[in-house]
Amino acid sequence: MSARARVGVIGVGAMGMGVAKNLLARGYAVRARDIRPEAEAEAARAGAIVCASPAALARECDVVISLVVDHDDTEAIVFGADGLAGALAPGAVYVMSSTVPPRYASDLGARLEARGVAMLDAPVSGGPARAREGTLSMMVSGRDAARERAEGVLADVAAKRFLVGAAPGQGSKAKIVNNLLAGVNLAAACEAMTLGLKLGLDAKLVFEVVSASSGASWIFGDRMARVLEGDYAPRAATRILTKDLSIAAATAAEAGVPGPFATTARDVFAAAVADGQGDADDAAVIRYYAARAGVKLPTKD
Amino acid sequence: MSARARVGVIGVGAMGMGVAKNLLARGYAVRARDIRPEAEAEAARAGAIVCASPAALARECDVVISLVVDHDDTEAIVFGADGLAGALAPGAVYVMSSTVPPRYASDLGARLEARGVAMLDAPVSGGPARAREGTLSMMVSGRDAARERAEGVLADVAAKRFLVGAAPGQGSKAKIVNNLLAGVNLAAACEAMTLGLKLGLDAKLVFEVVSASSGASWIFGDRMARVLEGDYAPRAATRILTKDLSIAAATAAEAGVPGPFATTARDVFAAAVADGQGDADDAAVIRYYAARAGVKLPTKD
Repeated sequence: MSARARVGVIGVGAMGMGVAKNLLARGYAVRARDIRPEAEAEAARAGAIVCASPAALARECDVVISLVVDHDDTEAIVFGADGLAGALAPGAVYVMSSTVPPRYASDLGARLEARGVAMLDAPVSGGPARAREGTLSMMVSGRDAARERAEGVLADVAAKRFLVGAAPGQGSKAKIVNNLLAGVNLAAACEAMTLGLKLGLDAKLVFEVVSASSGASWIFGDRMARVLEGDYAPRAATRILTKDLSIAAATAAEAGVPGPFATTARDVFAAAVADGQGDADDAAVIRYYAARAGVKLPTKD
Repeated sequence: MSARARVGVIGVGAMGMGVAKNLLARGYAVRARDIRPEAEAEAARAGAIVCASPAALARECDVVISLVVDHDDTEAIVFGADGLAGALAPGAVYVMSSTVPPRYASDLGARLEARGVAMLDAPVSGGPARAREGTLSMMVSGRDAARERAEGVLADVAAKRFLVGAAPGQGSKAKIVNNLLAGVNLAAACEAMTLGLKLGLDAKLVFEVVSASSGASWIFGDRMARVLEGDYAPRAATRILTKDLSIAAATAAEAGVPGPFATTARDVFAAAVADGQGDADDAAVIRYYAARAGVKLPTKD
């Protein structure tokens, strides 16, 4: 398929909107669908054609990418009322890019294949800013034929693509392994920064020391920079990684792998959500620690 | 002090040996002391003058750096029999570079100051290879006058130095905050890699996906590269971070900061030590997970 492929994006939240705007900027005809009218309105303002249902969208597209919240939403847009399962044209490809339990992705791929629908299990990593630039990383699994048909679009969505295997489920496994680490590294960053502040260290100094030392992580640098600015405007909302960590903990338990970090991170994120931080940026997990430690966090001014 | 400063290194294990050899290569007269004769013999072969006690070493040095295992060993070389406390010349500086409880570092500095001995609390990060190159990072706290007298030597030991405060204790606080993250990020890396392997993913693929995604950390890249090679020859032994994580957990508890990651990491490291991995490289924490998950790790061949 050329850059003229007709692409549909289902779920235009922060990530999906980034993907849609990036594809529009690259000259694709983009169709969009979301359950929230305000998200559809924003997509329309950016130049996307809003469709009335997943099925209506799928009928007009060569490649359909879904970036909905979880596996329940994925099930609804695929097999629910006016779902895409029965509407994709022969030769079209469905790209499942939400973070879902690996077992669900594998099962979904099998159910779709039984109906003659080609699915790629292709979760992405990198956040809304990189989605907007087309520089996400993507973990792709599925049949070569489907991957080759979608390759042009995938390359424009995710500059870095990892081929994880020939069966849906493999991509989701790689994604959940990564997000387990993102969640643990972030919550631990919040714990360590709070400890430093409580011990009387300057926040910027802790940031610089850790960034130059053995405790550095990608997410420490990204999210603690927001903490230094007192900026909790949501890019990735706390509830997203909370969900991913629940999947990671359940996957580890099911696989018989010790998961003390997965469960600890899941519980800390869940407590932050219970504290009211679910819709804030996930850097706000530090508020869970700060509130309990009696520490004052840096503010915008 | 010029590059001709006479420097003593007490504790020439992996880190201290790297520091001593680096200083010898830069033309310093280096004196060394260790409780293990084989370590002293290696230092002598590298050109260091071996001294019979911390006091004997201190009498001949302008700057004395200690890199012993823990605060008990630090106490012994400073205030034990033939300790350095009574032997340093006026104007000489004692640089305490082991990782110890912040409260101990603060107390030690006060006791030495009462005797007229200048101490810098200056833990280092970066591992033996960077010690050998003089490219460690160092978190320095202590009086400006002492720091200025030692600055030439410190600059040759640690290319990156952070000034954390004017009182001993501050440097150790910054160090323990960093090592908390190093320990958590490493143990979680082992958990995630084991989960990926148990789910049937290729180890090298997990390494590449995580390294390019939001789960990346400095220690994931460093230690999982060793896991891919099946290489557990000790650079930093597992028992070292085990000790640091105990300090981090105790410091958090004492400060009233929630420490679920500190305690989880401490317990996982302690279990790995109980499994017999204490003297192996700390990448061997993955053997704790692999044994329980029934996963076969990559081997050297």
